[in-house]
Amino acid sequence: MLENKNQKTSLEKLGEFGLINHLTQHFEVKNPSTLTGIGDDAAVLDFKNKKSLVSTDLLIEGVHFDLSYMPLKHLGYKAVVVNLSDICAMNATPTQVTVSIAVSNRFTLEAIEELYAGIKLACERYQVDLIGGDTASSQTGLVISVTAIGEANKSDIAYRSGAKDKQLIILTGDIGSAYMGLQVLEREKQVFLVNPNNQPDLDMYSYIIERQLKPEARTDIKKLLQDLDVKPQSMIDVSDGLSSELIHICTQSGVGCQIYEDKLPLDPEFINVCEEFNLDSTTISINGGEDYELLFTIKMEDFDKIKGNPNLTVIGHTTEQTAGMNLVTRENTQIPLKARGWNHLGNEE
Amino acid sequence: MLENKNQKTSLEKLGEFGLINHLTQHFEVKNPSTLTGIGDDAAVLDFKNKKSLVSTDLLIEGVHFDLSYMPLKHLGYKAVVVNLSDICAMNATPTQVTVSIAVSNRFTLEAIEELYAGIKLACERYQVDLIGGDTASSQTGLVISVTAIGEANKSDIAYRSGAKDKQLIILTGDIGSAYMGLQVLEREKQVFLVNPNNQPDLDMYSYIIERQLKPEARTDIKKLLQDLDVKPQSMIDVSDGLSSELIHICTQSGVGCQIYEDKLPLDPEFINVCEEFNLDSTTISINGGEDYELLFTIKMEDFDKIKGNPNLTVIGHTTEQTAGMNLVTRENTQIPLKARGWNHLGNEE
Repeated sequence: MLENKNQKTSLEKLGEFGLINHLTQHFEVKNPSTLTGIGDDAAVLDFKNKKSLVSTDLLIEGVHFDLSYMPLKHLGYKAVVVNLSDICAMNATPTQVTVSIAVSNRFTLEAIEELYAGIKLACERYQVDLIGGDTASSQTGLVISVTAIGEANKSDIAYRSGAKDKQLIILTGDIGSAYMGLQVLEREKQVFLVNPNNQPDLDMYSYIIERQLKPEARTDIKKLLQDLDVKPQSMIDVSDGLSSELIHICTQSGVGCQIYEDKLPLDPEFINVCEEFNLDSTTISINGGEDYELLFTIKMEDFDKIKGNPNLTVIGHTTEQTAGMNLVTRENTQIPLKARGWNHLGNEE
Repeated sequence: MLENKNQKTSLEKLGEFGLINHLTQHFEVKNPSTLTGIGDDAAVLDFKNKKSLVSTDLLIEGVHFDLSYMPLKHLGYKAVVVNLSDICAMNATPTQVTVSIAVSNRFTLEAIEELYAGIKLACERYQVDLIGGDTASSQTGLVISVTAIGEANKSDIAYRSGAKDKQLIILTGDIGSAYMGLQVLEREKQVFLVNPNNQPDLDMYSYIIERQLKPEARTDIKKLLQDLDVKPQSMIDVSDGLSSELIHICTQSGVGCQIYEDKLPLDPEFINVCEEFNLDSTTISINGGEDYELLFTIKMEDFDKIKGNPNLTVIGHTTEQTAGMNLVTRENTQIPLKARGWNHLGNEE
């Protein structure tokens, strides 16, 4: 699809300035904190008495995404969302993004427009402004760099280091599905390589595939917790797997933890696919990544406020640091948590 | 040099988290606006009643830099500086940067440390804080993405669109040298490829090579203008060539301009090298890029305040838009300015 240049526009014709202007002309500014967006040497922002938050990510073709099953529109959407998630992970509200891309000549203008259609969809869905970026050529694959900016009152910001002993560990949504969605897509890619005429029926995998291809950032959680009058004491987003993220919180807070296997929030489709792949759903759910749910701790006395909320699951509690970081199995044995998660540099070996 | 893995540390051993921690452990926070730097999902900044400014750039090996003559430490320094220059171009003060890199396995840890030594040097020289970033693997070349953040009082910020008719056009420093530095380096590379034992004597090119390999951001100009009690009415930095940048200011401001060939600030070494290469120094100086000087307009009545300052050269004045954008030659003929500059996408053709 990408390689077909029939009736398509090559990028050279536009040049760098033309390309930026063309791609960003339909983006509208939505936030009062955006005084000046695209079009000058720098964007100008005004957070008044709020603090600003900044996070950045680099996505590389062949390392972070595979265009053979990732549509460009989804990729643009996901590239923005995963960065917004980092702002959510501070209990803050994302307000702006910058997006830079490097593309090779194998991409047509129409392909890059698809990418930006996804970026625009994410900006509209999450009410964030595209305020800057850069386009460059790459000699091989596609590179996407996103910086997300957000705002929060100082007293609302939740750090990884804020957990204390005897707090409840809460997870939003469910976990593991994005990882299994990737496994299904990888399998179908292999089938396709052997028999390109095979049309896969992916209906029974729709939820887990959507979790992989079109994840969402939990911008709703900050308001939910405010409405419930609960302040998260520490917070992180689950991009590299629950186990790895929980270790970050515990290590940076100087506490231990116990989470319970039977409390892990898993989707029925996820459990079915784990069985189909003959994989242990607990192992996958705590080590799989890219769910972009929020993991946070709250004070024990806030339990009644969050109890029964369908968005929030209590999966365990913090302990003294000396007690270690453990998963308590259904058989009531303790297994130490390990940081496996994604290790993009390691993956290359 | 990069490929030599004898006694060197491979990146796989450290993994992604280990690499970030290792590279950033000696960076210190210097600005009061940096509340939290590296180590959480996002950095937390506080600009109080000032506005914040954001600019971002993507640098790709083989497109923006050539490691065969660009030492990694210089590259790290330059990657930061060119982004700080964008903040200076708004008449603002840079305060923070995020730096993300993607590297392939051909880079050793020691090579990446060199890159970060340059990044650190720039952060120290310009008193900016490294507050975040990402490391990823790349399948081929080195990718560097930098986002620079700055601060300014609203009334100080200078936009590209602020020029009006009958303002003076001012340039800091001199121009063209960075481009000719690149020409010398490219020539020596070709010589080296033919005869690797040839040791080039580059002493007579030291200024222009330094302008290419180790440019500086004009963070000093904001204070200089304040001390002179001059407010720039419009401003841009000269990264893509004087002609191209002046066209940006004129187009976005709705004015024309006249600049004078005999007023262009050129270094004697630059003029000599142009002669050696049989190139016209005027053409090179207005079309060459990467000088990172500031180009701005001031009100006519401020002339006495800036007159004779060695950092500032009046190169012309704005006109009504209908008069066009022109270079007035020594022979008093008018030549329309053209946006040639760098066009990284076009370069690939």
